[in-house]
Amino acid sequence: MSHGAGGKASRRLVEGLFAPLLLSGSDGALTDAAHIEIGGAPVHFTTDSFVVKPLRFPGGSIGELAVNGTINDLAVSGARARAIVVTFILEEGLSSSVLEAEVRAMSAALSRAGVAMVGGDTKVVERGKADGMYISTAGIGSPIFGITIDARTVRPGDRVLLSGPVGDHGITILLARGELDLEADLCSDTRSVLPMVEALAAEAGPGIRWMRDPTRGGVATALNELARDCGLGVELLEEEIPIHDAVRGACELLGLDPLHIANEGQFLAVIAPEYADLALNALQQTEGGDDARIIGQIREEPANAVLVNTRYGGSRIVDMLVGDPLPRIC
Amino acid sequence: MSHGAGGKASRRLVEGLFAPLLLSGSDGALTDAAHIEIGGAPVHFTTDSFVVKPLRFPGGSIGELAVNGTINDLAVSGARARAIVVTFILEEGLSSSVLEAEVRAMSAALSRAGVAMVGGDTKVVERGKADGMYISTAGIGSPIFGITIDARTVRPGDRVLLSGPVGDHGITILLARGELDLEADLCSDTRSVLPMVEALAAEAGPGIRWMRDPTRGGVATALNELARDCGLGVELLEEEIPIHDAVRGACELLGLDPLHIANEGQFLAVIAPEYADLALNALQQTEGGDDARIIGQIREEPANAVLVNTRYGGSRIVDMLVGDPLPRIC
Repeated sequence: MSHGAGGKASRRLVEGLFAPLLLSGSDGALTDAAHIEIGGAPVHFTTDSFVVKPLRFPGGSIGELAVNGTINDLAVSGARARAIVVTFILEEGLSSSVLEAEVRAMSAALSRAGVAMVGGDTKVVERGKADGMYISTAGIGSPIFGITIDARTVRPGDRVLLSGPVGDHGITILLARGELDLEADLCSDTRSVLPMVEALAAEAGPGIRWMRDPTRGGVATALNELARDCGLGVELLEEEIPIHDAVRGACELLGLDPLHIANEGQFLAVIAPEYADLALNALQQTEGGDDARIIGQIREEPANAVLVNTRYGGSRIVDMLVGDPLPRIC
Repeated sequence: MSHGAGGKASRRLVEGLFAPLLLSGSDGALTDAAHIEIGGAPVHFTTDSFVVKPLRFPGGSIGELAVNGTINDLAVSGARARAIVVTFILEEGLSSSVLEAEVRAMSAALSRAGVAMVGGDTKVVERGKADGMYISTAGIGSPIFGITIDARTVRPGDRVLLSGPVGDHGITILLARGELDLEADLCSDTRSVLPMVEALAAEAGPGIRWMRDPTRGGVATALNELARDCGLGVELLEEEIPIHDAVRGACELLGLDPLHIANEGQFLAVIAPEYADLALNALQQTEGGDDARIIGQIREEPANAVLVNTRYGGSRIVDMLVGDPLPRIC
């Protein structure tokens, strides 16, 4: 299961098997969307699959997640989604009302983002050969004017910006399964981050060095990948990282680190220091960006690692997610 | 199961639920790939999912099918694949050698076609929540110069061209499952049809009106969709349709119509009469196109239907596939 969790085992699978055999043109930095050129026009291209359990949860559902996930992967690669395609793998016997609800959720998410669905495919497998439905989406987008996302441009002194509270999605899913005797007033953060990314690009475009949406594996995994890709260290201030009490409480009870919990409506950005205030203001003035914070900065040391300064004056190294504490979170 | 079979129930699902809610910009003709414009450049965009059982079969495997399926959907829409993305949904416990074999099969198919894989995603679900592995691919392509595919341009008198024998893929899969007490010396026809489409475009480009790869639902379903989309009739000459003896025999035994059996390496084209000979020669001189035939022509009547003139002088109307005689064929 850990090979699908987005952490260390996933990265080993990608770097050990998929990249050498399949991504022959890859430059080594594994980003959320590929940049290619078609007929002279730059195109960003991405894909993702969704196996979240349960299909519906407080704040969202698999269909809405599938649309926003692809819009977000394009957004943090510096592109505005232009068209999406979808495949459904349905389990025989799935109620048509469940399918219709997800199609409607996708339709609403597409409308909100102003993105077109241009094609799709459906397969049905026998009862017991899927779990209700699985969805894959792929999207193409065109570059947002004036920004370039490249981990290799990150420099010591750059600021790390986070769009809002961490862990809401992962903990919401965990609680929605009802396997734990825990309840909390919590919703998934699933949403399109494109409006925030566009606001950031408009106000602080030249200062944006890198972005990523911290989904599976959480903020810690995304920033460890950044540290590795730029060869520098990421220093975080724990007290600056927004976390809802319910998430903090559930993590303490379960022995999980909120920095490893999946998010579906947040993004991280590395911003040149002279643009940091502009960037933060831009996010905070965009709907849904009130809780954006500068949570740390880039340092020479510890190279290739993420260091968290705790609220009690200590510090700890936070690694990528290892294993899979929360399977099928998206 | 029939909703995933590519025939009538699939079309009802697409037209009744997916198209009205999701494909808001659709013009009604459901094609294998969408045509959009990005930064002024025309881009074709398609997706498909693969749940074939077994994963490997004589002549191919799921990974190779996933790559060629997307290349072929683009090819019959009049485009050359430029980049592909992939998602894997893996069942916990899947052997790594099985996964590696499929990654290698994909890699080989990509190399043969000269197409780049530019990204992907992997999810793992618990044992019993998938059947080994499911794969979705999406692809973007750029138009092949000088051809336009549009069912609305089809005219009475146009010829129907078929690239090779029908039914090899579907019957191979059926036999590979070992549930029937039948054996035959038969391979799936899975392959890229792009070289044949490019040869056709080069020699008879202005004469090409429409193309389609007759996968799920077979030649009959593809041509019924054409008949409906152009409002004309398709008249086929049964004795001109190439069918291997093993396929004919298995179909007779099982009460199946070979025209409903899935193909993975064939395509249909409607060609203006003055280009028909050029087109046929172009295919027959391309590797793998020896068995190409003109199998019929477009008529005013029977409007919206497919008529087959049998080898014994009779004729019959062949409908789209109804139900799913062969689930999980691709």
